Amino acid sequence: MLPSDMRLRERVLSMIKKTYAAYGFMQIETPVMEHIENLTSKQGGDNEKLIFKVMKRGAELARAMEVGNGELADNGLRYDLTVPLARYYANNKEKLPSPFKSLQIGNVWRADNPQKGRFRQFTQCDIDILGDESNLAEMELITATAAMLSQIFEEISMSEFTIHINDRRILSGAARQAGFTEEQVGAVLISLDKFDKIGLEGIRRELLENGYDEGAVSRYLSVYETLAEGITCQDFCAKIGEEYLPKEVVENLTEITSCVSPMLPAGVKIIFDPTLVRGMGYYTGPIFEVTMDGYNFAIAGGGRYDHMIGKFCGQEVCASGFSIGFERIVTILKDHLEGKSPLMEGSVAYLIDKRVPAAKKAEVFAEAKALREQGATVTIQPMKKNAKRQMELLEAEGYQRFEKIYE
Amino acid sequence: MLPSDMRLRERVLSMIKKTYAAYGFMQIETPVMEHIENLTSKQGGDNEKLIFKVMKRGAELARAMEVGNGELADNGLRYDLTVPLARYYANNKEKLPSPFKSLQIGNVWRADNPQKGRFRQFTQCDIDILGDESNLAEMELITATAAMLSQIFEEISMSEFTIHINDRRILSGAARQAGFTEEQVGAVLISLDKFDKIGLEGIRRELLENGYDEGAVSRYLSVYETLAEGITCQDFCAKIGEEYLPKEVVENLTEITSCVSPMLPAGVKIIFDPTLVRGMGYYTGPIFEVTMDGYNFAIAGGGRYDHMIGKFCGQEVCASGFSIGFERIVTILKDHLEGKSPLMEGSVAYLIDKRVPAAKKAEVFAEAKALREQGATVTIQPMKKNAKRQMELLEAEGYQRFEKIYE
Repeated sequence: MLPSDMRLRERVLSMIKKTYAAYGFMQIETPVMEHIENLTSKQGGDNEKLIFKVMKRGAELARAMEVGNGELADNGLRYDLTVPLARYYANNKEKLPSPFKSLQIGNVWRADNPQKGRFRQFTQCDIDILGDESNLAEMELITATAAMLSQIFEEISMSEFTIHINDRRILSGAARQAGFTEEQVGAVLISLDKFDKIGLEGIRRELLENGYDEGAVSRYLSVYETLAEGITCQDFCAKIGEEYLPKEVVENLTEITSCVSPMLPAGVKIIFDPTLVRGMGYYTGPIFEVTMDGYNFAIAGGGRYDHMIGKFCGQEVCASGFSIGFERIVTILKDHLEGKSPLMEGSVAYLIDKRVPAAKKAEVFAEAKALREQGATVTIQPMKKNAKRQMELLEAEGYQRFEKIYE
Repeated sequence: MLPSDMRLRERVLSMIKKTYAAYGFMQIETPVMEHIENLTSKQGGDNEKLIFKVMKRGAELARAMEVGNGELADNGLRYDLTVPLARYYANNKEKLPSPFKSLQIGNVWRADNPQKGRFRQFTQCDIDILGDESNLAEMELITATAAMLSQIFEEISMSEFTIHINDRRILSGAARQAGFTEEQVGAVLISLDKFDKIGLEGIRRELLENGYDEGAVSRYLSVYETLAEGITCQDFCAKIGEEYLPKEVVENLTEITSCVSPMLPAGVKIIFDPTLVRGMGYYTGPIFEVTMDGYNFAIAGGGRYDHMIGKFCGQEVCASGFSIGFERIVTILKDHLEGKSPLMEGSVAYLIDKRVPAAKKAEVFAEAKALREQGATVTIQPMKKNAKRQMELLEAEGYQRFEKIYE
């Protein structure tokens, strides 16, 4: 991570922290290492195959080696921030306000194939509201995230993005009404999730190849065939009988959209998107995702997951959260800032020749102190033999003024 | 890490980042995992025994298991920030300004005995100047660190602290003049380092027990017996012959002290301390440490270490650095802030009854948006059955105003 990259990342992080703080989210930090059992409890899906395992030590390791087939690891590096959040909440919930609004920023590790061009260590940023069963949670998550993203992308004059919203129960209702069983819904949604990539006909082929009933497939896809641009949640759901979809679900989603909509910064819109699935099976209610024209990945996504925290807590805890694609946001910013010099306003580099006596050095330090107290970036350093090259590199870092001191 | 702890840590971190940025230090980030060979190259002293090792994966692990006595780990969690800095500089030095002024803040891990009450994961904060062989490096390190600490401790009205300075070559010169050989110096300094704990007589006993020549021990300690309060570097070093201590060393340290002294914030002083040793053997020149009355540990310490980075770079790189005791600073602040409420200026908590209709919610969100844009912390959440308890916990988090919305 070179200094210029770090400056960009730090600026984004400080905007994230500031905006979410204004919305009452409290920053927490959790340990990077977790007990291996917590990481391998089947909540993490495929990520559990990518865990970096930390070896036991001393006598415990010796004992495990002796057994032969014994487990040699007792800890692992976290692959996401959700398991640590659940454990954190289980340990501290008596001391925390309820609902608890958390902001967690931290590194996670996945033993991914290096050729993918991704780093094995990367930063995740999650906001979650635990203990709020009402749709105020979704309203807070979405308005805060829209405000944060809008502020960040303003820097590169890209303030247009779209918030997609749907509900896991609408997805499931539509599938069950078509004739799929409760057990089949998960697999059917895996196919629907490919809507953007393979289209309706691709989904039809895949479902039929997977052996699903042709009538059910036809009935199911007919609902998605005639989607009018800008269809509302009510209009879409009117096609689904109430036995498959309680009307509270539709009212809930409509209320979120209508309340959030006027809060959004200029250029940001929220749309009902009946094809939005979100991969993870643990979602139980509203789901959402933020996209930007010209990028084929989501820059943030999340939803309600009412049963997952409870698996670690031993007590049901409703929860809704948003995961911010920090690395993706940084990538987009870098794409657009390329070439622009990261100038440091009022910055000065003093280059001191080695003949300069102590008294003169003291003068330079005093001058620099005054400038630094006014907020300027000032560096004092020896003049190198190749002062020209030295100044070029400093200029590349953003320095604007150079003072060469010879005696 | 509870939210109130995190707020304190974040505040300290932001003061650290801001002050060092004004002094031209550039923040870098390095990976948490290092190749195990880099961590076990004997540069880390006893810390190398405390490494958390990360297991090989897949085919590589299978191969290592088969061999039987094969190395099962390929990576480890870093135990300090110096090894990562050296590797970072070796990889990137062509792209970095020279001298390179780095600020590195990150977690490190040591498999310590848990009963010590220390966490196995903790934050370190290092500033280093690589490629500056002049004493401008020490002047920058010390003035920047004094400014940073002064700003932080102002918060708790504790602006008095002392910077101790000495030079490894003075320590070595005094020992060699007394008759110790070059090879004995390291061991002799380990004893002198205990000056504060066991006093001169304790040191004498220890050196004699370790079998050193009685005459040499006597001559050695006589130099430290008659230390006048506020003795200067020149006066102390006048007792050491120039064959053991080049006069440039004394001039260098005197220049640092005289140049830094007028730059220090009120309440901060810098003193020559001939008994300051600093444990690590890799120091080669000036060494320094910051102490505070009432605390028997240093809150920052460092020195010049001209040969260490080169071991990773394959090319000599002079270096001088300061390690900030971040966790210790936070501990001192917590000691003094205990009980004081972390008020959030202008903060509001809206508690919404479940009967409140969507239109009213929208009004609350609009009101909150305006306040948030003015920088206030605002939370919107459902009113819980026990609203009194709910408000108490929010008040403990710093909320000042509560608005209950019933309809």
